[in-house]
Amino acid sequence: MDSHANQEQIDLVCARVREMGFKPHVIAGEDRVAIGITGNKGALDKEPFLSMSGVIDAVRVTKPYKLVSREVKPDDTIIKIKNSNGVEIKIGGDELHLMAGPCSVESETQINEIAHLLKASGVKIMRGGAFKPRTSPYAFQGLKQKGLELLKEAAEKTGLLVVTEVKDTESLPAVAEHSDILQIGARNMQNFSLLEAVAHYNKPVLLKRGLAATMEEFLMAAEYIVSNGNPNVIFCERGIRTYETYTRNTLDLSCVPVIQHLSHLPIIVDPSHGVGMWEYVAPMAKAAVACGAHGLMIEVHPNPAEALSDGPQSLKPKKFISLLRDLKPIAEAVGKRLNVNVLNETKSLELCA
Amino acid sequence: MDSHANQEQIDLVCARVREMGFKPHVIAGEDRVAIGITGNKGALDKEPFLSMSGVIDAVRVTKPYKLVSREVKPDDTIIKIKNSNGVEIKIGGDELHLMAGPCSVESETQINEIAHLLKASGVKIMRGGAFKPRTSPYAFQGLKQKGLELLKEAAEKTGLLVVTEVKDTESLPAVAEHSDILQIGARNMQNFSLLEAVAHYNKPVLLKRGLAATMEEFLMAAEYIVSNGNPNVIFCERGIRTYETYTRNTLDLSCVPVIQHLSHLPIIVDPSHGVGMWEYVAPMAKAAVACGAHGLMIEVHPNPAEALSDGPQSLKPKKFISLLRDLKPIAEAVGKRLNVNVLNETKSLELCA
Amino acid sequence: MDSHANQEQIDLVCARVREMGFKPHVIAGEDRVAIGITGNKGALDKEPFLSMSGVIDAVRVTKPYKLVSREVKPDDTIIKIKNSNGVEIKIGGDELHLMAGPCSVESETQINEIAHLLKASGVKIMRGGAFKPRTSPYAFQGLKQKGLELLKEAAEKTGLLVVTEVKDTESLPAVAEHSDILQIGARNMQNFSLLEAVAHYNKPVLLKRGLAATMEEFLMAAEYIVSNGNPNVIFCERGIRTYETYTRNTLDLSCVPVIQHLSHLPIIVDPSHGVGMWEYVAPMAKAAVACGAHGLMIEVHPNPAEALSDGPQSLKPKKFISLLRDLKPIAEAVGKRLNVNVLNETKSLELCA
Amino acid sequence: MDSHANQEQIDLVCARVREMGFKPHVIAGEDRVAIGITGNKGALDKEPFLSMSGVIDAVRVTKPYKLVSREVKPDDTIIKIKNSNGVEIKIGGDELHLMAGPCSVESETQINEIAHLLKASGVKIMRGGAFKPRTSPYAFQGLKQKGLELLKEAAEKTGLLVVTEVKDTESLPAVAEHSDILQIGARNMQNFSLLEAVAHYNKPVLLKRGLAATMEEFLMAAEYIVSNGNPNVIFCERGIRTYETYTRNTLDLSCVPVIQHLSHLPIIVDPSHGVGMWEYVAPMAKAAVACGAHGLMIEVHPNPAEALSDGPQSLKPKKFISLLRDLKPIAEAVGKRLNVNVLNETKSLELCA
Repeated sequence: MDSHANQEQIDLVCARVREMGFKPHVIAGEDRVAIGITGNKGALDKEPFLSMSGVIDAVRVTKPYKLVSREVKPDDTIIKIKNSNGVEIKIGGDELHLMAGPCSVESETQINEIAHLLKASGVKIMRGGAFKPRTSPYAFQGLKQKGLELLKEAAEKTGLLVVTEVKDTESLPAVAEHSDILQIGARNMQNFSLLEAVAHYNKPVLLKRGLAATMEEFLMAAEYIVSNGNPNVIFCERGIRTYETYTRNTLDLSCVPVIQHLSHLPIIVDPSHGVGMWEYVAPMAKAAVACGAHGLMIEVHPNPAEALSDGPQSLKPKKFISLLRDLKPIAEAVGKRLNVNVLNETKSLELCA
Repeated sequence: MDSHANQEQIDLVCARVREMGFKPHVIAGEDRVAIGITGNKGALDKEPFLSMSGVIDAVRVTKPYKLVSREVKPDDTIIKIKNSNGVEIKIGGDELHLMAGPCSVESETQINEIAHLLKASGVKIMRGGAFKPRTSPYAFQGLKQKGLELLKEAAEKTGLLVVTEVKDTESLPAVAEHSDILQIGARNMQNFSLLEAVAHYNKPVLLKRGLAATMEEFLMAAEYIVSNGNPNVIFCERGIRTYETYTRNTLDLSCVPVIQHLSHLPIIVDPSHGVGMWEYVAPMAKAAVACGAHGLMIEVHPNPAEALSDGPQSLKPKKFISLLRDLKPIAEAVGKRLNVNVLNETKSLELCA
Repeated sequence: MDSHANQEQIDLVCARVREMGFKPHVIAGEDRVAIGITGNKGALDKEPFLSMSGVIDAVRVTKPYKLVSREVKPDDTIIKIKNSNGVEIKIGGDELHLMAGPCSVESETQINEIAHLLKASGVKIMRGGAFKPRTSPYAFQGLKQKGLELLKEAAEKTGLLVVTEVKDTESLPAVAEHSDILQIGARNMQNFSLLEAVAHYNKPVLLKRGLAATMEEFLMAAEYIVSNGNPNVIFCERGIRTYETYTRNTLDLSCVPVIQHLSHLPIIVDPSHGVGMWEYVAPMAKAAVACGAHGLMIEVHPNPAEALSDGPQSLKPKKFISLLRDLKPIAEAVGKRLNVNVLNETKSLELCA
Repeated sequence: MDSHANQEQIDLVCARVREMGFKPHVIAGEDRVAIGITGNKGALDKEPFLSMSGVIDAVRVTKPYKLVSREVKPDDTIIKIKNSNGVEIKIGGDELHLMAGPCSVESETQINEIAHLLKASGVKIMRGGAFKPRTSPYAFQGLKQKGLELLKEAAEKTGLLVVTEVKDTESLPAVAEHSDILQIGARNMQNFSLLEAVAHYNKPVLLKRGLAATMEEFLMAAEYIVSNGNPNVIFCERGIRTYETYTRNTLDLSCVPVIQHLSHLPIIVDPSHGVGMWEYVAPMAKAAVACGAHGLMIEVHPNPAEALSDGPQSLKPKKFISLLRDLKPIAEAVGKRLNVNVLNETKSLELCA
């Protein structure tokens, strides 16, 4: 639509699309609105649309992904997220955001320590698993509902936003009530029923790349969410499965520029799962920022040796603080900002005794 | 337990396990019963069990999979399946079974044609998708409830058993009502909530290997189902994702002897998804039988060129009949039986006009 | 060319091709000759050829592989191999051939024991490594020249044919002098200089698939050999690299029907390297025969526990004899013959004491 | 050895090692010398060495790679390279180095244009293929000897150093005569005979990671070169083969910190081959510098659309200049230096008209 198109003109185009038996999707950009059309088989005639008031162009999308593609919406999508404390952040723009915290919420003490560390560091989003999908039925499956409550309490005390994984449709209402961003885990990237279900919540979705998902399947998984009504999807590269065994997964950073080339949605990187060993998290976090990621997800634990899950890949608070300091100049070198406070060592030790 | 152990002795062992705070799993073999114990952290002392009446040995299982392992139950599990018409088959023994039919149920005519073809051929189990997980939200998602009903009607007329995919927990009750075997698709192999849910139904589960699942993860997925109460799991190798593009997936037939070495549960092979092109289905089906598979799942469609999904990998009835004829001597060469009727060409053309 | 075309007609076509600045390749089939043309950029005009005497058709090959393709030569290539004892075999027809023996030649006693076992079993081709490419510079690199001599002596005493690996162009003349089939190992599949070098010897080449080679690259590697003048290439599938760790490699048996569909050249399978553990060699060997392989390469060692390389995947003589017995009916079930003698256990123990 | 150990003490230790029947390898560090021992089977007794004058410690290396490991030599190896013009550079220290130029040398004009662009930009090392290993026997195989001569002439006029690929042992003497760094291509990473051959030249070796090589195999390939007498190996990550098709390969940047953790040798990154499309070269080059690479290899071509090989992944001069400008601040952010001149657009257009 023209950047001056008004709501009435937009509504008329949508009505015309529905009359034809198809589905319109209004996609709001910074200074103009795009209207995606799905449900058609084969190409549509452009003429009926070009003649309507407020329409400036009609583009045929040749990729299997439509609503998430840059062909439909050329400018970057910036996702605004606000928590109940009134803290608002934007993902997808010039400011980088970190989502940090433990793999699993384990206790009130643990999550509070991390929350204070993040707060003091200027990190705005806390991660922590409550419902954990685990390869073994005998492994720790998370504190579940109790974990959600501990997360929310810690977040409310500190004003942080919360991202946590949605394991299934059964736990989705509870997760949505206790968090600000709904995370779809790698093993659920093609759980299409769950993708449809999260689309019906008014919360942004952090979509992790499947263990062996192609970039096209990654885009199509986002298309499921957007075409079902939720335009706020954040991609997350977290490593793919290859033959290499020296790292837990192979972090595919080329996913960042490729997704940014093909889609208007933001993408962040999770180097902790990508490499699986804390020694390599910092260099890969720096690389992720350098190649253009809109943010990072990092596992931090006050005492990795005793973590109930993913200890080997979690950073100690001191290492995390040191990483924040190192990331700032790289962010600036690529034209981004990372608004964090670089604490000194004494401070970080105090926060996580 | 001793092969002469009585129910009282079994119950006493289970009671002792529960007293210790763990969970007993009674696993019935051909001539003896094994009792798996889960819920312990670290090794248990064998003495308390060895001194109980009816117990002949206590084995520590060192693999992450326990109940599905040969260490717990050395003899093959043979799964009996009976449908509402009273037809009973056994999977896991000397008789091979085929599960055949279209990728998706598309119409009453289509599924009835296939059902009559299978019936006339002596094939006992019909496959057909009703709830279809698809990479694209815009692709045909199956006839859903209507598809289930068509499947069941066709099966009841012919006395066939039905296997169809369970896409999610929401559709599980309906699928369980209309089918004899619950199929977990490749994309759901690590949908742990769904694995737990199917475990609560009294139906065998056909568990497909995930797109990039290791054999260990495959065994662990079965362990989820068995440890939640359903001992009747049939593995299904259907190809894994590799760099090769001349085939849809890479059918990993070595999975058959490896799984048979490590587990007592049966394993079948789906060459149709494994290779993705009908030309290669027959040779790979033969190879699967030769390396010891307990059965095959094969896509057959009266008119592949017009199939709504997976046409390129579906056999025409004539090719399917010809494959049945070719499989019989291979089955016999490896000490198995394939009780099918080899129809002549005229007959197969009549059945699928 | 027409099946009645005479040498003069063939020569005229070749001369015409050369006049145009291209390269003719005469490819002899069972009852007709094909002439491949390479060196052209873009499509050639068919007319000048169709008007020549003895030519019946001109086909444009659209694949990157030309001389090895079925488009150029529709009927199977059958490769005749004769050793200095006058023993002749054919690979690519109805008779299956086994190439068996140790990973490495280790001693005169070892190779003689195996040679007698093979001779008594009716196996015609002995394998054994003399120049061994090894991942570590500190691992046993083979007996080199001495190994070649031991192989040849053992072969001459028994009338067996010999296949052994050519590690580099330096050792090629010696290997060619001591063997009947030149093996290109997986790590050398894209050592293009070596491919060109073996093309200049008048010996068939056994070309192993690279560790992570696509089927197209596999075909192109054969194209290097054929286009440089040696039409006698035998493909060998030996497993590809995937993320799976329960097997050494992932044996991609679908390579057999795919290569047979696309190329006229024969293909055999090496299940020993494919799976890496002797327990799984027999089932995969059976599967290879069932899906249409023209032969097998199997590692056999009188005492695997003391083998200097690849012990875990080598069969003991007794297991090997038992495999031969089991393969015969499968070969027959797919319309092939396996002319081996099934020895009894006592006999095999005598041969490899 | 002690940092004050003199040559005599070093020689005595080497003599003792040889007396024992093993092989000593003198590895010179910044301020001390290490002596690696190979040829032993099983662990050696430390005592005989610890009692020798000048020895301060004896360490048992438990990894399969020894001489390339940090266990043998904890401090970074810095490789000095000097060309015939007297220009000297160091790879492995604080200064980053770029190796840039076309995939293939195509003409005198082309290579001279690039040489002047590099010279003006301050880049010290020119790349360019003369002997090209190609998947197809019908593809352009490089200008061969003529290409080497053009490279050397262009380098001599400008004072640049040259790196070019060694395709086989036959062309090795000519390549060594015309270049300053010997490149081993990905397909030759496990061509062990070639690795041994380059070890006998007094030139540094740029070792590219194989298409599907594990990091352990990568280290072992370097071990072949070092154990055969050439300590100057530079690793080069260039992408590995995965199932992903949106990029040519999957650039595995985690290889950089892992190799740096395990080995003392330098590692650079080739993002051009890693991603295969010029759009993604710049972000991945930045990421490589951010995660600690000691240098980059980048394909630049005056006219990518007409390149005889790898056009799609080559940068135009203008894009290359722009990348140099962007890399400088990232290098500084990770404590490195990139001594290049950032030309303006007019200048770069003049240089490559």
